[in-house]
Amino acid sequence: MPKEESTQGITVKKEQDISDWYTQVIQKAELAEYSLVSGCMILRPRSYSIWETLQSFFDKEIKKLGVQNAYFPLLIPESLFNKEAEHVEGFAPEVAWVTMGGHTQMQERLAIRPTSETVMYDAYAKWIRSYRDLPLKLNQWCNVVRWEFKHPVPFLRGREFLWQEGHTVFADKKDSEKEVLDILELYRRVFEELLAVPVITGKKSDNEKFAGADYSTSIETMAPSGKAVQAATSHHLGQRFAKSFGISFLNEKGESALPYQNSWGFSTRSIGAMVLYHGDDKGLVIPPRVAPLQVVIVPIMFEDSKKEIIAKAHEISKHIAKVASVEVDDREGYTAGWKFNEWELKGVCLRVELGPKDLAKNSAVVVRRDTGKKEEIKLSDLPSFIPKELEKMQADMFAKAQKWLSDNTVHAKTWKDFEKGAKEKKLIYASWCCSAECAEKIKSETEGVKCLTLPFGHETPFAKCINCEKPAKSVGVFAKSY
Amino acid sequence: MPKEESTQGITVKKEQDISDWYTQVIQKAELAEYSLVSGCMILRPRSYSIWETLQSFFDKEIKKLGVQNAYFPLLIPESLFNKEAEHVEGFAPEVAWVTMGGHTQMQERLAIRPTSETVMYDAYAKWIRSYRDLPLKLNQWCNVVRWEFKHPVPFLRGREFLWQEGHTVFADKKDSEKEVLDILELYRRVFEELLAVPVITGKKSDNEKFAGADYSTSIETMAPSGKAVQAATSHHLGQRFAKSFGISFLNEKGESALPYQNSWGFSTRSIGAMVLYHGDDKGLVIPPRVAPLQVVIVPIMFEDSKKEIIAKAHEISKHIAKVASVEVDDREGYTAGWKFNEWELKGVCLRVELGPKDLAKNSAVVVRRDTGKKEEIKLSDLPSFIPKELEKMQADMFAKAQKWLSDNTVHAKTWKDFEKGAKEKKLIYASWCCSAECAEKIKSETEGVKCLTLPFGHETPFAKCINCEKPAKSVGVFAKSY
Repeated sequence: MPKEESTQGITVKKEQDISDWYTQVIQKAELAEYSLVSGCMILRPRSYSIWETLQSFFDKEIKKLGVQNAYFPLLIPESLFNKEAEHVEGFAPEVAWVTMGGHTQMQERLAIRPTSETVMYDAYAKWIRSYRDLPLKLNQWCNVVRWEFKHPVPFLRGREFLWQEGHTVFADKKDSEKEVLDILELYRRVFEELLAVPVITGKKSDNEKFAGADYSTSIETMAPSGKAVQAATSHHLGQRFAKSFGISFLNEKGESALPYQNSWGFSTRSIGAMVLYHGDDKGLVIPPRVAPLQVVIVPIMFEDSKKEIIAKAHEISKHIAKVASVEVDDREGYTAGWKFNEWELKGVCLRVELGPKDLAKNSAVVVRRDTGKKEEIKLSDLPSFIPKELEKMQADMFAKAQKWLSDNTVHAKTWKDFEKGAKEKKLIYASWCCSAECAEKIKSETEGVKCLTLPFGHETPFAKCINCEKPAKSVGVFAKSY
Repeated sequence: MPKEESTQGITVKKEQDISDWYTQVIQKAELAEYSLVSGCMILRPRSYSIWETLQSFFDKEIKKLGVQNAYFPLLIPESLFNKEAEHVEGFAPEVAWVTMGGHTQMQERLAIRPTSETVMYDAYAKWIRSYRDLPLKLNQWCNVVRWEFKHPVPFLRGREFLWQEGHTVFADKKDSEKEVLDILELYRRVFEELLAVPVITGKKSDNEKFAGADYSTSIETMAPSGKAVQAATSHHLGQRFAKSFGISFLNEKGESALPYQNSWGFSTRSIGAMVLYHGDDKGLVIPPRVAPLQVVIVPIMFEDSKKEIIAKAHEISKHIAKVASVEVDDREGYTAGWKFNEWELKGVCLRVELGPKDLAKNSAVVVRRDTGKKEEIKLSDLPSFIPKELEKMQADMFAKAQKWLSDNTVHAKTWKDFEKGAKEKKLIYASWCCSAECAEKIKSETEGVKCLTLPFGHETPFAKCINCEKPAKSVGVFAKSY
């Protein structure tokens, strides 16, 4: 076994120290690598491939809704960036500024986009003239930079990330508000159907909404680290940006009118939530629908039968390739056990073990990554067994994650319940007055617990606010967050 | 006809003033829009869609070669950027520097990537340990910034553009050099088979090679504006970066060795070349294989038959949608003539005109954008006629472009021929000594003509250099360039 590759495993248990576990697993499983700039991360092929799968799903779905892709510049002049007061206030503290071009000082500083409302809506004001130009629905897949000063966490909190940002304009408020929820539903599907991560949909409280929005909706989840992840957001901007950027249109009666706008986005942060949810002490567990590699065939090689076994492994691989992504690991110089560990670390969904005894029975042993369950399967049955087992694994992983989330959710009736939940790092449902002062008070009394969302389907509150005991306006979902 | 949309056409002829024509056509056909930052351009859906088509083709092809996609950070610390001397010398004059994060001055300036060799090879040095890790073949689709001070031209010369950059590492020099040409061949196919733009493949002279490369190959073309476009480059970096960045590997004998590296890229600049080649006085002409919209059906609407005609147009559209991208333009309030102009401006490949007289004959008139040729086609034949006609159009456009390039190419035997060719804005083949001094001399004597490439297949030079009359080393291809 080559010496330089013998330190493959995770040296800490997930339950023991999930932060250390997380840092090890994303590097050792070759998902990401730190760069020399703090908070700026390298997405290696194994994580970028997951991103490509999410992109491909979401891109197809938004195109069905009539959204088109475009690309707007990375750099935004400071004066343009400052145009919408509330928006700039929210983002200015974390803007990275370009001040030099070559050896020349720039006349005006340029912001690297933390989000693209300003640069896009300046163009929208030129393009939109009449109701015939509406709705305008553009999206871009790009990088953004937010110069955060908190401790960076790969995928979950960084200074550069990849995302999509959709920016749409409607003549009609109803159409605009409908789209906010249509998009939120797509985000829910990305997380629940692809990443097997259960989410809560809801509306942000006013103090947590997007800088410049009328209101923000989001999907939220709780990671096994005991911190919540804001997984995606879909904002209704109302007419605020239209006013600031001078976007108006002639309606069918020939009168000038202000349109309604939305913006919505999700990012590579999604991959972090997936890792935290499904990984175990052996490394990554990746849901089959997004796995870069679904099946690995490991031939068990003895000198006398090696040639035959390897040939058979490649033959089987050809059949499996029609229904799943597959590789044969016939590398010399590694034991089978070492290979098993390696592919478990990397989260390959199914391992097919093929040794001389299996071959004699015309079968192979299939091992599932999430449960470790072993099954002896006839070689001729593999191409039908594998896709079914992958779908079963996808469903099982989601069910397990849902159970975890439900087991880690409490419904607090009293402030004492709330405090206990906070200490135990639970996701807490509680009735709430929804005021900014109370939000601050809760944060300070619980070392940082905040309201993630006002969940849909829980709008009927209990009588009083869980903390300040003023009349409650809604149920809130509370936790610490990334 | 709505007043605000009546100024649709290009107001200058392509032959009269191709720069003005180009600027008008890219804006009026809604390909691109200027932003407030000079040299930073908005790619609107009609051009972004072309980019997506090129991406999709090239991405599939490089994946067949075993290349994987990844993503490396946008921002590169100055110290890392400075690590390869020749490389930094080439790029430093046009780097955009980030110096502030929020309200805080940064300790070290960060370069926005003008290209990613430095940030990628720093990571490669960590990842590559043994021959088993090679070849390493990564690619990223991303934005880059080069703060040029020359007059920007949309697509062709800007400060931010989208591209792919492939960065590969091989144990063996031969494998590395083979890949340089495999990739160049893919670039040739992108231009000739998709964009219908003929190119010349060759090797850059030493004074024109990539900063830090052993040698550079490229594809070049000449645009009807009389200026050449470097369309894509594929560089063999040799071991120079491996030395600077400390990339080494243990070979099969257990000895430490330096690997060989390549880098290669093409960009949204490709779209500019396509526009210049094929556009005409009416606007864009887009080759069918990359056209955002291939077919538009324009129902000719009279009050008494409108309803029936529109219904029929949509019915036909459903059949055509199976073989081509198609839209029905049944907007009210525009004349058929106005619509014809609009779709010609935007470069839609085929226009299907459907009026009451056509319908009576169960046929439609199909008009080709590139030639204006009209044909009466039975409605039932449309789904078989259209894909054939689109492929014919693709081939005809490429043949026409090839003829144009050949008509505008001269083979200079004397310096007088060369000067005449330069004055007439021709692409000039001439024997050349290949020295940097002579390159400078030629440039100054011709107001900027330079050697684009030493073309493959023309390696046998004439006896003497066209300018300095020293012994020629190769044939060179000369022109002014973007």
